[in-house]
Amino acid sequence: MKQEKELNTYIITPNLVRNDLTRSIAGVDHLGKEVKLPVIEEKPLTIFLNDQEIVTAMTIGDYPEYLALGFLKNQRMLLESDIVTGVDFELDLNTVVVRTENKTNFENKLKKKTQTSGCAVGTVFGDMMEGMENLVLDPLVIKASNLYTLSKKINQTPSLYLNAGAIHGTVLCYKDNPLVYMEDVGRHNAVDKIAGWIFKTDTDPKDKILYTTGRLTSEMVIKTALMGIPVLISRSGFTAWGVEIATQVGMTLIGRLRGKRFICLSGHDRLEWDVSLTETENFL
Amino acid sequence: MKQEKELNTYIITPNLVRNDLTRSIAGVDHLGKEVKLPVIEEKPLTIFLNDQEIVTAMTIGDYPEYLALGFLKNQRMLLESDIVTGVDFELDLNTVVVRTENKTNFENKLKKKTQTSGCAVGTVFGDMMEGMENLVLDPLVIKASNLYTLSKKINQTPSLYLNAGAIHGTVLCYKDNPLVYMEDVGRHNAVDKIAGWIFKTDTDPKDKILYTTGRLTSEMVIKTALMGIPVLISRSGFTAWGVEIATQVGMTLIGRLRGKRFICLSGHDRLEWDVSLTETENFL
Repeated sequence: MKQEKELNTYIITPNLVRNDLTRSIAGVDHLGKEVKLPVIEEKPLTIFLNDQEIVTAMTIGDYPEYLALGFLKNQRMLLESDIVTGVDFELDLNTVVVRTENKTNFENKLKKKTQTSGCAVGTVFGDMMEGMENLVLDPLVIKASNLYTLSKKINQTPSLYLNAGAIHGTVLCYKDNPLVYMEDVGRHNAVDKIAGWIFKTDTDPKDKILYTTGRLTSEMVIKTALMGIPVLISRSGFTAWGVEIATQVGMTLIGRLRGKRFICLSGHDRLEWDVSLTETENFL
Repeated sequence: MKQEKELNTYIITPNLVRNDLTRSIAGVDHLGKEVKLPVIEEKPLTIFLNDQEIVTAMTIGDYPEYLALGFLKNQRMLLESDIVTGVDFELDLNTVVVRTENKTNFENKLKKKTQTSGCAVGTVFGDMMEGMENLVLDPLVIKASNLYTLSKKINQTPSLYLNAGAIHGTVLCYKDNPLVYMEDVGRHNAVDKIAGWIFKTDTDPKDKILYTTGRLTSEMVIKTALMGIPVLISRSGFTAWGVEIATQVGMTLIGRLRGKRFICLSGHDRLEWDVSLTETENFL
């Protein structure tokens, strides 16, 4: 478990060092002028669990090991009882292989394919609500002022989004500190990379906050709940079922966080209104 | 085939008549004030092809028949040679069954699962590039002024997006006329509903334009190409692979269409610059 002093600054920031995550593309603008602009890459990555091919994800290509681990965890193909003995990424084959001590029972997952929202061809294996039946998250009180600080810090962090657009971001936070900022063409990939990082570093999710640029659909709420994170924040909107599930598992759900505005859809009694209403109004 | 005179007004507009596509949800805003707001519904719909369960999509719930047909067509589980004998939607079971004269060979599709971008758990069955190998779209010249008119008309059309947000829209257009405007929580669902409508009404795709609110990822470009539509427009961004595929199949690809601005990523030689540069600049 991390000490608090380690949790006041970024551990992982968006990947701006690698030059293979964007490509310079020539286009013609509305004035007929040729323009060159940085565009996000999208590459296939095939995830194997032992000798079984599970899925090919379209991803920007960073942190393939976290993506694979997080995906398998969030799909419950990897359970707490499974011991991971290795994660091997082969760049030239676009594959990542997660190995476990014993065979896993993921075959059961293949029996039912549930397509998910956010995009039409989103398929999860197994019942979407599996593992959610009796789940109640440990309540975490958060300060409204932390929401504002987080939003500001995240928006000001140099990112592929600020450079090239067309990418989603997900940020694991502690109090008012962003800790791990992952980006991907798929908003779910970004969440899965966070899940993989949490798993790999044995980080306690119970006092953390998850921030996403994407919408709060049922799937996003379910993933966050299964990760054990009690607060989910987005600058975007939400669906009715997303709100319903958050309420059911005791997750604090905050949407449309922009500037000083937000809507708390679930758990407003766990929000500490430490910014005076006058102060808030002045900010608008 | 439709006559031109039928193609100058909406055939299908966003579904604002049904009251079960949104739900009133209570939240608390940043001032601590309780607010009620309309929120998009998200419901499971299980698609069957004959007696085989294919997938469960999370959808707002309108046009299940078009969604099922379009999904199966776009996944190439339904081929040109397959004769559809019926599409049965069962509201209380959340299922839609597409029946064909003969058994289809979709089982082959289940052999390979390719996860797609846009969201991490996006899975298509079969090779994503299947059917794209030698595909070259018939070139269609479009006017820059039509882009502006389409964008304005679409943005001003009353929609679930304008009412509740958190939803994607896809619009089939002819010249400067929006014809069929579909919305869904999943941007791919919205495209699939358009594909289902085209198939069902035997509409010629060759002179049409597809507008989407979502990003132009590889998948969106592939779906549009397989639908035989030569022009794809978005108000959002694009990925490098999306641009690459559009160039390869001769699709005109236009992104970031907002106000008078846009970027043409592919096929600018098929764009007729009928708005003078001065005029355009005055609009900015």
